[in-house]
Amino acid sequence: MKSHALSELGRRTTEPPISWLMATALARPQLISLAAGFTDNESLPVGEVRGLLNDILRSPRTGPAALQYGTTAGDQALRRLTARHLHSLDGGPVARRVYSPDRVIITSGSQQMLYMITEALCDPGDIVLVEDPSYFVYLGILQSHGVQARDLLMQKDGLDLTCLEEVLTDLKRSGLLRRVKLLYLVTYYQNPTGRTTSFQKKAGALKLLRQFEEAAGHPLYLLEDAAYRELRFGGADVKSALTARGSSERVIYAGTYSKPFATGVRVGFGLLPQPVFRTVLHIKGNHDFGSSNLLQQLLARALSSGRYEEHLAVLRRRYARKARVMRTALQQHFPAAVEWEVPGGGLYFWARLPQHLKSGSASKVFRRALANNVLYVPGDLCYADDPTRRKPDHEMRLSFGGATEVTARKGIARLGKVLRKFLVR
Amino acid sequence: MKSHALSELGRRTTEPPISWLMATALARPQLISLAAGFTDNESLPVGEVRGLLNDILRSPRTGPAALQYGTTAGDQALRRLTARHLHSLDGGPVARRVYSPDRVIITSGSQQMLYMITEALCDPGDIVLVEDPSYFVYLGILQSHGVQARDLLMQKDGLDLTCLEEVLTDLKRSGLLRRVKLLYLVTYYQNPTGRTTSFQKKAGALKLLRQFEEAAGHPLYLLEDAAYRELRFGGADVKSALTARGSSERVIYAGTYSKPFATGVRVGFGLLPQPVFRTVLHIKGNHDFGSSNLLQQLLARALSSGRYEEHLAVLRRRYARKARVMRTALQQHFPAAVEWEVPGGGLYFWARLPQHLKSGSASKVFRRALANNVLYVPGDLCYADDPTRRKPDHEMRLSFGGATEVTARKGIARLGKVLRKFLVR
Repeated sequence: MKSHALSELGRRTTEPPISWLMATALARPQLISLAAGFTDNESLPVGEVRGLLNDILRSPRTGPAALQYGTTAGDQALRRLTARHLHSLDGGPVARRVYSPDRVIITSGSQQMLYMITEALCDPGDIVLVEDPSYFVYLGILQSHGVQARDLLMQKDGLDLTCLEEVLTDLKRSGLLRRVKLLYLVTYYQNPTGRTTSFQKKAGALKLLRQFEEAAGHPLYLLEDAAYRELRFGGADVKSALTARGSSERVIYAGTYSKPFATGVRVGFGLLPQPVFRTVLHIKGNHDFGSSNLLQQLLARALSSGRYEEHLAVLRRRYARKARVMRTALQQHFPAAVEWEVPGGGLYFWARLPQHLKSGSASKVFRRALANNVLYVPGDLCYADDPTRRKPDHEMRLSFGGATEVTARKGIARLGKVLRKFLVR
Repeated sequence: MKSHALSELGRRTTEPPISWLMATALARPQLISLAAGFTDNESLPVGEVRGLLNDILRSPRTGPAALQYGTTAGDQALRRLTARHLHSLDGGPVARRVYSPDRVIITSGSQQMLYMITEALCDPGDIVLVEDPSYFVYLGILQSHGVQARDLLMQKDGLDLTCLEEVLTDLKRSGLLRRVKLLYLVTYYQNPTGRTTSFQKKAGALKLLRQFEEAAGHPLYLLEDAAYRELRFGGADVKSALTARGSSERVIYAGTYSKPFATGVRVGFGLLPQPVFRTVLHIKGNHDFGSSNLLQQLLARALSSGRYEEHLAVLRRRYARKARVMRTALQQHFPAAVEWEVPGGGLYFWARLPQHLKSGSASKVFRRALANNVLYVPGDLCYADDPTRRKPDHEMRLSFGGATEVTARKGIARLGKVLRKFLVR
């Protein structure tokens, strides 16, 4: 007798690499974790949420409705507000029909949207183009579905378009282009590098994808994961790929209200072209036939009352300040041989050690850091398995999301001390 | 160029049959819908939920935690309370280790659990044994995964064990037994028939599955969907399959807090044996890495404060009363040639017209009912596609869940009038 009855997906789906990091952090209260993607604990909008929920539940009109089943696509008001919110973020002279509530699906975090899009488009053996490095949970989704991640070089302003063209050309030549379904980009303050994709890069990528569609035999989608978009420290927003000319039928936009408002609320959304919209909606019907109405109404009211924007303004200042603290600590404590960039938003610094100094979970650096009670995400976890190149193993993702200013400073100091030992030798 | 880039799953996933019923109901405000699986609107625990949320969010200890990310398996307190709750429902001298919090995963409704279990166990071409008729959304999940539903005759106290044995023997003979992964039973006040599976039937089914495991080459699981368990009108509870001897490694139990408490809250759970637990947990990591902490803490507090049980007692009396109202209306208005049983709980009556009188969505009965502003779920939607038998098309599911006493009475009167016209002719 075989030892299990698992499906192929079941067997492919492995423990997320982040799980043991979280378990390690929980087991050692002394540990300063710069690994977790947790958001700032002190600024969570507890009072605001309480006020909004009381408003909803006190009203005989909205109270019972919030506790009843809703529809699969989501609360109509929240879909409308989401479409309007995206239109307002993107501004400009784009046709409103792209930002139609009818194209919006509300999900349990944007993660569920990423999952369902992959289910809707990808068969085992298919190929998804990703940034190198990319969001590791998405790499896990691809792996569990038997989908090959094909990685693209990144530059400071997003993916390398020359590399994209070369990869597409290679795939066309080898007959594999028909297996390509989408290009996945984390376009704002990317997880893990903190980099933001310029609008020119998004438009250029879309244009290239269009050029190869004939050879692929089907549409090639751009999945824009904008999870960190609103966590901007300052300056102007970059327009989404939705504003690129003629792109409305090829861009799938995934966003979230969790990170900019409250992660415990887990409300995300997608804006999708047909037929992906319809298919994802039916998949959502099978997943859970609609997300919690209570949470959706909470977000709808946060948006319509202005509380969302108010809180976001606070949160941006707070993260900007924590990023400055971490930057100062990095300048002070990290050896000059370690490179890092200053992100314009989001939750992460990405530090590059000299190539010879490994940072992976089996490395001396990692173990020494742990012994000194500081944890980071080893960079190699953020790279897709790709037999054509050696997986880089000399980087670290450092999050200032969950840390306080004090622990961020102290954590970087501890880590700097560890690194100096290795780099002085 | 092909018109789409959809995956096989994407192409198989069709619109849930219930969608157009819901759309029809929404488009016609005069319509009395006995179709929806909505729960009672007037008894929703609005005040209780508000009180509990205020308690959670007022406390500096629990407030921020409720708005922060949690863990993938779910809130530790809710997992513990869930295990204890199930143990207390099952009572008796069963080893506590079956009811370990470590075996519990919290999900977005029990629907998400059903989905992930299917993903974890089933490949396209696999077979799942189901009751005939069964829960139509689950049939949709199977279809989208390319899994064949093999239907089993039902008796008044659950599946026909002789039929189960015959089907397993047939499958063994034809070499298809290795494709069988699980038996799916809705064991309490089944959707759609309202029938409850006796404990003897559950134990007998488990024994049979065990006998065929050697030939299957892997474990054969019993997935017990207990969604309606707590909506009992009175009398004693039936023990779950978890209490059957030696079953702890073969029973997957899926339950929910949505229907017994508040459907807008969408918190469900599963209790699973290894290795299904581990695999489903990893899949959950990819789906959403954990359900909303706020909702989980709400349920945990509802359970620990006793509010859950208090509300449930109210709800049970209310549904019992609505079921009596519908029963009286059925006696009064339905022709004698229509058969129906009195459910002991849940949300549904299942009515059987004489075989010659079709009830499907294209039937005269359905159209005449709609013209008279009353909607039911056509019975044929609840049957799996099975080339070996003609799909029954003379039944109707009648829900008293969302209707008021007045609309339930009026709806049955309208429907009775329609049926009398056809049965007098």
